[in-house]
Amino acid sequence: MSKETKAKYSYDFPRASVTVDCVLFGLSEDKLKVLLIQRAHDPFAGKWALPGGFIEMEESLEASALRELEEETGLSKIYLEQLYTFGDCGRDPRGRTISVAYFALVQAAEHHAKGADDASAAEWFPVDKLPKLAFDHAKILDCALTRLRAKVRYQPIGFELLPRKFTLSQLQRLYELILGRELDKRNFRKKILGMSVLEELDEVEAGGARRPAKLYRFHRKQYDALVKQGFHFEI
Amino acid sequence: MSKETKAKYSYDFPRASVTVDCVLFGLSEDKLKVLLIQRAHDPFAGKWALPGGFIEMEESLEASALRELEEETGLSKIYLEQLYTFGDCGRDPRGRTISVAYFALVQAAEHHAKGADDASAAEWFPVDKLPKLAFDHAKILDCALTRLRAKVRYQPIGFELLPRKFTLSQLQRLYELILGRELDKRNFRKKILGMSVLEELDEVEAGGARRPAKLYRFHRKQYDALVKQGFHFEI
Repeated sequence: MSKETKAKYSYDFPRASVTVDCVLFGLSEDKLKVLLIQRAHDPFAGKWALPGGFIEMEESLEASALRELEEETGLSKIYLEQLYTFGDCGRDPRGRTISVAYFALVQAAEHHAKGADDASAAEWFPVDKLPKLAFDHAKILDCALTRLRAKVRYQPIGFELLPRKFTLSQLQRLYELILGRELDKRNFRKKILGMSVLEELDEVEAGGARRPAKLYRFHRKQYDALVKQGFHFEI
Repeated sequence: MSKETKAKYSYDFPRASVTVDCVLFGLSEDKLKVLLIQRAHDPFAGKWALPGGFIEMEESLEASALRELEEETGLSKIYLEQLYTFGDCGRDPRGRTISVAYFALVQAAEHHAKGADDASAAEWFPVDKLPKLAFDHAKILDCALTRLRAKVRYQPIGFELLPRKFTLSQLQRLYELILGRELDKRNFRKKILGMSVLEELDEVEAGGARRPAKLYRFHRKQYDALVKQGFHFEI
């Protein structure tokens, strides 16, 4: 398309702004946590929010999300999945803003967040003890939690959240934290072992437990196949 | 926020345009079809594309999608589900454009599309016999088909696509069209009846068939519950 033709299609009417926001879930201190930043600038200066910001014209949406995440929290090399796009009128006091939200699961303990750039602080918060969030970020977070809860029903989960070697109790606890309720131990073990995604190791948990628990790790090939193929985990 | 403060946040830097695009799937003449419009204007004048267009500043994303769909095809009252947001640089020759895509399942036979506004024509095309599409719409359509194929694995499907009363052969044919391959009749019937979403009627198919087939309809309450709860349909 020539420059002239292109100019013909340069719309003069008002345009919305486009932002990206990231919901990072992590597991630490026996809690499901989400990464928040404290906003350095108005609107909502001093308030907690999801890391994110305006897209640049020359980068893809995912690249924008990764850049904002790194600028504001120092975290990089995160595998982001697109969650949903939020575009209601009035969700941003600065004017019409469309936000493309992403989400990811990471090991919180390995990702020490540090506020920088437009964020005066970055911290992991337990999902059941959140501060009041800026914009419609409570709604975005809620949408991410719903997606995460749906995911455990048709995909194996945990690879990104647990340490490489873990006990069945740790895995059950992860499911309980995500679902927000306790699960029957016997039933859980039967189902999770029936999935054939776990490899039993010839090792036990370190530490002073009276009856040290066996350690497991995910059978990556089988795990990836199940992620792709899907199943129904009736819990 | 005051007008002055608001002005402070009115960004002067270049902004992307935001559009919505709709992927409507329908069933007719024993084919899975998608609704396309023929573009009346440049770029891609005369080419086929998904119905869609620029959002207005005062309407939600979904309202924009419904408006564009009605303007360009005459179809209204469609239940749209957000699919994915496409924002790669260079996907629109007019400049950076972010498109929020929606999709829906409808009965093609009941939705006679008619081109209008920015569309010189609107037509249902079989998904396996598509014309070359404008922009990255082939990619968007592909994403919608993938989502539809994934959906049949964890949700009942067909309520929006089939007539109110249908035979098991019709339902199987729908699954085959979506999955793009033949299914074993006995196995399919066993599984679909096991879902308990079907109600057997005291009626048979009209017409001259030698062995008229029984008619079924969806048990709406059970169907809705399964959509919500999910399952795994191993096919």
